[in-house]
Amino acid sequence: MENNNSKEEINTNNKKNNNTEEKIRFFLEKWTKLVDPKIKEILSLSVSKRMQKLINYQVAMGGKRFRPALTIASCLVCNGKIEDALYPAAGLEILHNYTLIYDDIIDNSELRRGKPTVWFNFGKSIAQCIGMDYGASIFQAANRSKNSFVISEIFSKTIKNVVEGEILDILFEQSKREDEKYIMKNRYKNITEDDYLKMVSKKTSSLICACCEVGALVAEARESEIKALKNYGFNLGAAFQIKDDILDIFGEEKDFGKKIGKDIEERKLGNVVIFHALKEFSSKEKEEFLKILRKDKIESQDIKKAVNLIKKTKAQERSFSFGEKYIERAKESLKKLPKNKWNEFLSEIADFVIKRKK
Amino acid sequence: MENNNSKEEINTNNKKNNNTEEKIRFFLEKWTKLVDPKIKEILSLSVSKRMQKLINYQVAMGGKRFRPALTIASCLVCNGKIEDALYPAAGLEILHNYTLIYDDIIDNSELRRGKPTVWFNFGKSIAQCIGMDYGASIFQAANRSKNSFVISEIFSKTIKNVVEGEILDILFEQSKREDEKYIMKNRYKNITEDDYLKMVSKKTSSLICACCEVGALVAEARESEIKALKNYGFNLGAAFQIKDDILDIFGEEKDFGKKIGKDIEERKLGNVVIFHALKEFSSKEKEEFLKILRKDKIESQDIKKAVNLIKKTKAQERSFSFGEKYIERAKESLKKLPKNKWNEFLSEIADFVIKRKK
Repeated sequence: MENNNSKEEINTNNKKNNNTEEKIRFFLEKWTKLVDPKIKEILSLSVSKRMQKLINYQVAMGGKRFRPALTIASCLVCNGKIEDALYPAAGLEILHNYTLIYDDIIDNSELRRGKPTVWFNFGKSIAQCIGMDYGASIFQAANRSKNSFVISEIFSKTIKNVVEGEILDILFEQSKREDEKYIMKNRYKNITEDDYLKMVSKKTSSLICACCEVGALVAEARESEIKALKNYGFNLGAAFQIKDDILDIFGEEKDFGKKIGKDIEERKLGNVVIFHALKEFSSKEKEEFLKILRKDKIESQDIKKAVNLIKKTKAQERSFSFGEKYIERAKESLKKLPKNKWNEFLSEIADFVIKRKK
Repeated sequence: MENNNSKEEINTNNKKNNNTEEKIRFFLEKWTKLVDPKIKEILSLSVSKRMQKLINYQVAMGGKRFRPALTIASCLVCNGKIEDALYPAAGLEILHNYTLIYDDIIDNSELRRGKPTVWFNFGKSIAQCIGMDYGASIFQAANRSKNSFVISEIFSKTIKNVVEGEILDILFEQSKREDEKYIMKNRYKNITEDDYLKMVSKKTSSLICACCEVGALVAEARESEIKALKNYGFNLGAAFQIKDDILDIFGEEKDFGKKIGKDIEERKLGNVVIFHALKEFSSKEKEEFLKILRKDKIESQDIKKAVNLIKKTKAQERSFSFGEKYIERAKESLKKLPKNKWNEFLSEIADFVIKRKK
């Protein structure tokens, strides 16, 4: 009986989760149809036909368009009009893709979402040029938004924050880049919780925070609402990165759509699971683990070995609770916003972010 | 007597040239003192102390600040106030340096103005991040300018033009980049005058044109004056690039401050002297020349050989006349602007651009 009951509970929960996921997917797809034409329009401004083909490649690779959806939902929760959210949402998705283009170059990543990355497809020189075009487009989107001055300022600040987070993430790596003296010299040998949070808040939270802030701004929301949405976005962003870190180590390759253990392969200390595992390891385990991270060449058996070491610790549960804390904070912020169906939707997004399998 | 006369004429001409050069240098230095603090201020916005150090490196390497001077002079010729030109001038100099950072990465250039380039100093990953910060700063400068919306649009458009020119310049190369499939596949085997002019108008003229246009805009000049200054800048930019191309092949290393024959070393067809020489070469000479440009490794004796082949042709004179034509057009445009001392100064800049030895 007890068993049956729990089974039923799990089923109900699964059903509820599935419904929420379907609802979120429904809006992501619906809004993508509104935002993608704007993205294409902006990217096509002031470029030749040849350039257009090169530029469209990155955004045509797909992506959930999660960030534009946050801008739209943030606008709607403050009773704004959806059409006012479209250009800034497009700008933020271009900004996101801008960082991905350079991220893939820096990390030498050959595949993204199962497709050749921009640099792998066109070469690094052309990829950099394409990146510069994205950088310029971001502000053409800002200029087509309500409150364009403030939004342009937010875009600049966000880029600078993401860049700083990216640099920290690189400096948290334990090996590679032997030809890059500055990195070799300034590399972190170990990181604190503060270091981790600083990196995450800059690399991931700042952009998700900007998505929500901009949505509120174009809705001409009150100061207190803008603040609440910034808070929501910031905490959601932290949880988003934490969950990404967990999936990187413990996800199912077929669900996640990315290679498991990529952060180990990239020798990162800046993964929350690795961070928690290192705190728990015996000095022998720690030595063994760091030896892998500092190897010249990391093979798939090394990744397995590292993951097995992590599995002996409570790093997964600890990381999950850590992420849940940010979700709670994000949901707390929603209380300061109008109670409507979009408020509920933002709350569901928060739950989804921490529970998702991909 | 005749000889003496010509000598005297040369001396007077030299003196006049020297005076003009001194005058131009005087204003470049004077205005640099006004613009550089704005550049530093803008680059420092929204970044940490660590980042500031990384970011300042590129602009601290020097440079003539020729582009900001054009913005200021264009503002002054239309009776604008110099203080209105400073932020946009800073933005345009940041834009110029933004393109240099990526240019040096793409061309693998280790030195610029005798100093290690950003990527050579910090590694390519960090250099790319620094570049992204420059990209974001450009629009923070636009936002601090009068007429910020229009100026921001011009900045975006200019970046996209420069990028397209850069891609053409890469596609005009005759070898290298074996790992970059797109370039290998789309490389030009020979170029027409139209191809050359398209590349120059995008890579160089578009930015110099923008410098002059923006100066007129912040002076709240009349439509006809804005148009005249755009024309001036566009033609000046073409002449500037043509003269740079001539100096690359025929300059004196000690004057020019750059390695002579760099364009040959970089296997470029997109140099006006090379373009004119190729038109004049016998088929045997052409074959010999292109064989050098397509070599796996170009040694200094190869460069010498290529330059000697060029010296047999009238490419130098032809290129110079070609450049002079643009200077004449630039000066023609000045007739549509207020007659004041800044009009004269812009005319002197035009002469200087084609006559300079560095």
